[in-house]
Amino acid sequence: MIDFPEIQELIKPNNSKIVMLVVDGLGGLYHPNYGKTELEYANIPEIDSLAKQSDCGLTLPVLPGITPGSGPGHLSLFGYDPIKYTIGRGILEAIGISLNLNTSDIAARGNLCTINGQTGLIIDRRAGRINSNEAKSIINQLDGLKYKNIKIEAHHVKEHRFVLLLKGDGLDNNITGTDPEIEGKMPMASVAKDSGSTLTAECINYFNKQIKTILANRDTANMALLRGFSKIPNYPNISDKYKMKCAAIAAYPMYKGLAKLIGMSVLDAGNSFESEIQTLHSNYDKFDFFFLHYKPADAAGEDGDFIQKVKSLEHLSGVLNNVLALKPDTFILAGDHSTPTVMASHSWHPVPFLINSKLTAGSGIQEFTENQCRGGAIGNINATHLMLLALAHSGRLNKFGP
Amino acid sequence: MIDFPEIQELIKPNNSKIVMLVVDGLGGLYHPNYGKTELEYANIPEIDSLAKQSDCGLTLPVLPGITPGSGPGHLSLFGYDPIKYTIGRGILEAIGISLNLNTSDIAARGNLCTINGQTGLIIDRRAGRINSNEAKSIINQLDGLKYKNIKIEAHHVKEHRFVLLLKGDGLDNNITGTDPEIEGKMPMASVAKDSGSTLTAECINYFNKQIKTILANRDTANMALLRGFSKIPNYPNISDKYKMKCAAIAAYPMYKGLAKLIGMSVLDAGNSFESEIQTLHSNYDKFDFFFLHYKPADAAGEDGDFIQKVKSLEHLSGVLNNVLALKPDTFILAGDHSTPTVMASHSWHPVPFLINSKLTAGSGIQEFTENQCRGGAIGNINATHLMLLALAHSGRLNKFGP
Repeated sequence: MIDFPEIQELIKPNNSKIVMLVVDGLGGLYHPNYGKTELEYANIPEIDSLAKQSDCGLTLPVLPGITPGSGPGHLSLFGYDPIKYTIGRGILEAIGISLNLNTSDIAARGNLCTINGQTGLIIDRRAGRINSNEAKSIINQLDGLKYKNIKIEAHHVKEHRFVLLLKGDGLDNNITGTDPEIEGKMPMASVAKDSGSTLTAECINYFNKQIKTILANRDTANMALLRGFSKIPNYPNISDKYKMKCAAIAAYPMYKGLAKLIGMSVLDAGNSFESEIQTLHSNYDKFDFFFLHYKPADAAGEDGDFIQKVKSLEHLSGVLNNVLALKPDTFILAGDHSTPTVMASHSWHPVPFLINSKLTAGSGIQEFTENQCRGGAIGNINATHLMLLALAHSGRLNKFGP
Repeated sequence: MIDFPEIQELIKPNNSKIVMLVVDGLGGLYHPNYGKTELEYANIPEIDSLAKQSDCGLTLPVLPGITPGSGPGHLSLFGYDPIKYTIGRGILEAIGISLNLNTSDIAARGNLCTINGQTGLIIDRRAGRINSNEAKSIINQLDGLKYKNIKIEAHHVKEHRFVLLLKGDGLDNNITGTDPEIEGKMPMASVAKDSGSTLTAECINYFNKQIKTILANRDTANMALLRGFSKIPNYPNISDKYKMKCAAIAAYPMYKGLAKLIGMSVLDAGNSFESEIQTLHSNYDKFDFFFLHYKPADAAGEDGDFIQKVKSLEHLSGVLNNVLALKPDTFILAGDHSTPTVMASHSWHPVPFLINSKLTAGSGIQEFTENQCRGGAIGNINATHLMLLALAHSGRLNKFGP
């Protein structure tokens, strides 16, 4: 998109409906214990049947070899170049726990850590992955400080992790973090890298001093490390960009937050994929484009649980017709990244996708797998170009040039 | 090409011959009535036989989902990035009717339209697609006006369409058009967007006033709308770019004009593909590179006539050996874009191509179709890279780097 400013002029709104189902961590890898990839092993007749009537291919989320986090993975699918539109770790953590953010807020990712009371050297950067209950009560003690006119908030996330939020005027995020990212060193003082960020660094150094005092009588989890200072990025609004009303239907806060950052309307989607589908049905008349998020495949992939990932794909296939019943003009099934169970983590591998419209009859593959998608009607594309295909199939793009 | 400026240094002229046959609108789509794509349905043994001994693939004209006009589609095949080297609608229309253009001329695309004589509001933007004879006589009345030192020419194209040409010194094309692009509004005054274009806007507003007077006694086709103001673009010369003498052999004026814009020698090619082939034979010694244009596949595609497009491909196959008889060192069969009959329009779909040289024996596919080309020796490439392959196969590119 970055190289093609004229795209805006080509866009032609109409009444078509586009549903993009993002299966988090969709792609997998051959697993030696099962002799197949998760998609190959899964019994997913409804998805396979759709793939037979669809243009299929693989999306490259960033670049070959580059493993995306959830932020870049999703931004790509929505046509935002993830190398240009970066997202700060602090901000992503904050939206992941549904914090209300203003454009002037500074967010940081925090770790409780353990330091040696005498020397001040870091013994454990994660405070033994302290249990969440205990950590929460510690974080509560750190919440609500003030420095000059700045309010300092600390919000617990999980185990040793928390979000630090600075609220007030005169802040910027161009400061160094306090985490040396190695044990045996001291937490570092924060240094402002420009004059607009001086107050922020002062706040952080004040906060560091206060933590030491507040947690002085603890032997473990007696200090904190901060990094990823960031502000809400100023992304182009997706509804303006594509001249269509875009809605996000996701159960997990982080995906709602990401969608909100690019200007999607975030719908109340309940806590399950079934409630997400209900939300889709009850809001189908109100929007043009729907981002529908399916989480379980990624969760199982991250756990390295092959059978669980297979089951999550089979479950999806079983409920797919509840989505297709709406007969969207263009339906896309795609993934933000691969999460092969054999790696138990996100990976860089291109991700299978299908796009289905009245123009894709007869162009499909037999089974929706990584290998077959590679030979599909589209083949390998950059994930950022998927939205162009969505617009084209929906008749929302005029011809380029005379 | 834009990312590889060193290309120029790698080029090594030699005596090889390259023939690039551009089949306009070559690619198609599965048609539900026939159960196949046009290429799959067509009986084209000569092309298939060549494909068996060729490197095959698909060219992406611009970006996924982006449908190119004829201008961008051809520029891509000649290695000109169509996003960088845009072409104005007025200019393309002018070269389509073989107008002689100077670099200082301003061309616009004109429509005769019908306005309400009292209110001045547009009733019909295309004047009921007035028949060509009547339109021609109206356009003749508008031709030959003068404003200050500027000559104003009006040239009829077809039905309601005409080209407006401004000739003289002190003109530039950065003005707004007069077409509101919707009915029920007034034709707009033209506004200069920079000081160099002030005279142009004055001319257009003078012309608008004159039309009203000249056509005052008409009820329909009593006004005109203008858009796409443009000048001849200043493209790099193709013969310099590739260090080879390039010739265009095309029956239709627009393709001749396009070729001329990038510096090809435009040969007298008659009015049919057969006369084009004769022209190729009789000029074969004089040039290194030949662009040979085949139009009927696109025309049938635009008409949505599946069988006619199939026949046009079969006809091409039947006469192909008259081209191959010359034994060019490198022969390419490619398309500027797809024109699926099921869409009856240009489309964004990647276009099949083959490249044949003494280095491609044994690398081919069984049948020259969209699906098989995808799995050919080359696969998917940007159309702008096809010329690099042409040069490479002809021994015209040195090694890059030590």
